[in-house]
Amino acid sequence: MNNKTLLNHLNISYPIFQAPMAGVTTPLLVATVSNYGAIGNIGAGYLSKEDTKQFIDEVRSLTDAPFGINVFVPEKNEVNEQQVELSFELMKNHLHRLGEEVEHIPDYKSVTNYEKQIEVILNEHVPVCSFTFGIPDDDIVKEMKKRGIFVIGTATTVREAQLVEQANMDAVVVQGSEAGGHRGTFHEQEHLIGTMALLPQVVDSVSIPVIAAGGIMDGRGLMASLNLGAEAVQLGTAFLTTKECGANPVHKSALLHATEDETVLTKAFSGKTARGLNNEFIDSMKRYETKLPPFPYQNAFTTKLRTVAAKQNNKQYMSLWSGQAPRLTKDVTANELLDHIINQYESIRNEIVSFK
Amino acid sequence: MNNKTLLNHLNISYPIFQAPMAGVTTPLLVATVSNYGAIGNIGAGYLSKEDTKQFIDEVRSLTDAPFGINVFVPEKNEVNEQQVELSFELMKNHLHRLGEEVEHIPDYKSVTNYEKQIEVILNEHVPVCSFTFGIPDDDIVKEMKKRGIFVIGTATTVREAQLVEQANMDAVVVQGSEAGGHRGTFHEQEHLIGTMALLPQVVDSVSIPVIAAGGIMDGRGLMASLNLGAEAVQLGTAFLTTKECGANPVHKSALLHATEDETVLTKAFSGKTARGLNNEFIDSMKRYETKLPPFPYQNAFTTKLRTVAAKQNNKQYMSLWSGQAPRLTKDVTANELLDHIINQYESIRNEIVSFK
Repeated sequence: MNNKTLLNHLNISYPIFQAPMAGVTTPLLVATVSNYGAIGNIGAGYLSKEDTKQFIDEVRSLTDAPFGINVFVPEKNEVNEQQVELSFELMKNHLHRLGEEVEHIPDYKSVTNYEKQIEVILNEHVPVCSFTFGIPDDDIVKEMKKRGIFVIGTATTVREAQLVEQANMDAVVVQGSEAGGHRGTFHEQEHLIGTMALLPQVVDSVSIPVIAAGGIMDGRGLMASLNLGAEAVQLGTAFLTTKECGANPVHKSALLHATEDETVLTKAFSGKTARGLNNEFIDSMKRYETKLPPFPYQNAFTTKLRTVAAKQNNKQYMSLWSGQAPRLTKDVTANELLDHIINQYESIRNEIVSFK
Repeated sequence: MNNKTLLNHLNISYPIFQAPMAGVTTPLLVATVSNYGAIGNIGAGYLSKEDTKQFIDEVRSLTDAPFGINVFVPEKNEVNEQQVELSFELMKNHLHRLGEEVEHIPDYKSVTNYEKQIEVILNEHVPVCSFTFGIPDDDIVKEMKKRGIFVIGTATTVREAQLVEQANMDAVVVQGSEAGGHRGTFHEQEHLIGTMALLPQVVDSVSIPVIAAGGIMDGRGLMASLNLGAEAVQLGTAFLTTKECGANPVHKSALLHATEDETVLTKAFSGKTARGLNNEFIDSMKRYETKLPPFPYQNAFTTKLRTVAAKQNNKQYMSLWSGQAPRLTKDVTANELLDHIINQYESIRNEIVSFK
């Protein structure tokens, strides 16, 4: 606890991970964070093999420092005709309201790029690889570790963290209920355990390093997480509003003006539970939540709607992912954010009193 | 932040409040915590005027140190005939299953004891008085402060904390989503914001001292809460399993063996959302949640069932209140718990590293 094992192992100066936010993370953001001495993370998510390779190349053209990449472990969800029809009808109506007509059901069956992404990551020897939504097969973990890749899993309960450890992964991101974006839950149902309660219980139950996520925004959150037993923190929402982040300006502006009571959990955008700022789309989809196609199919059905909404700067139909502390977002560069975190951490460190 | 203003003001040594758990807190628990140099709290909840006075007398016979008392601000909820009939029928059936027959609807209309409790607290000059479920009237706050009583409100959002400050109260307990027992929400709907996210946002928005609650169980939670800007912490679940606590042994044993994924939010016991370990009663009542009498009426309807279940040591029908970190509960005395918290805090303090 509070030692520098993870820092030494990863050859970094600060125990801070920029969360791999698929779709909005840019090569510049990843490289800036890594150049600072923290870990920038590529959110490979739905990227093709070629785009994954290109993203890695671009990061490498901007930094020699270690960085990470995150992939989604595919789930074996099935989709039925009723779900497809319902989702297509709903999206058609929403798009009509935005002035766009659609005739054809989108290609929602396209297979995952997971295996091809893994191939690229292995070939490229990306320094850090994290997995979300499940546990990778044994041979993938083995092969990665053989090549010196630091392998990280994602957990939302003690049991999930133990499964990550049992899979011989090197560390685990522990995601509290405050976290923005998709829930990493993969074992049984959603439990939504707050970071303050979850962290020490996980730390007591596993022996691999814990990386804390969920509601952490500044030096206060970094200090609190390390004192709860984490060895590092992972920040998503705090990096979403940095200048280097590719999030839509409408999304950034919404976060910069949001309050802590504006986020909700929704399956409307992807079929998987995620936290974001509430809007008309989420509200209107609430009553269909149990009837929609599961992840990742629903994501394909909403792609067009989200694209059109983004073009129109219409935040009512965009996925405005956010953790529960948007009041702490800042309109800054990634370097300024990191400076602020470290300076605040050090100033807290100097003020901690004794009760003896 | 992290200073000792609150300690000096209250004339205590440790920034720790034992949560005022109505129904299970004993005079011995309150006095033991206060004698240690922290703040023990009476959970006056549903106590009559006489019982409130007697509880205070018993605490005073055991300690000269400052202690607190908590009261429920009455809500103007209405109950209708359908809700009454449904709840009575459901409880009758549950009790029948436990071998008890009931003929008559319980006295659910008995008025609140709030005004009489306030009278006692003013007369007795109880050092600290906290309010839950709302904001007391101006004249109550004024009169308490005139008599040197330290007045505390309870909030679950930034807005609620601001309302507490605007009511001229001296401090605010900020309750994160991890907390066990009843939610203190009183303004608009339930938002369930985790302690890690909620604390710094509240600290940035009010100037009165913040007392952190929700998922805090040990020296790690104390340290983390102070790091996040709180001036003290309030622990409920951690004190529930202490020897001095009057919780049913079945409840204590359930907590000592529970995992973090076993708690749920339910309105089944009182009509107000509360967190506890899941059981058959909660499960069976889930589909009636929106049709039950509101708080505090439903509490009256379930009293007999909870009493019978307790006598039978049947945890399936008891309210097993618990926060989200039951894995951290210990079978110890209150003094041992407090020793452990302070020792762990000090040992963390000695290990905090610099990143400069």
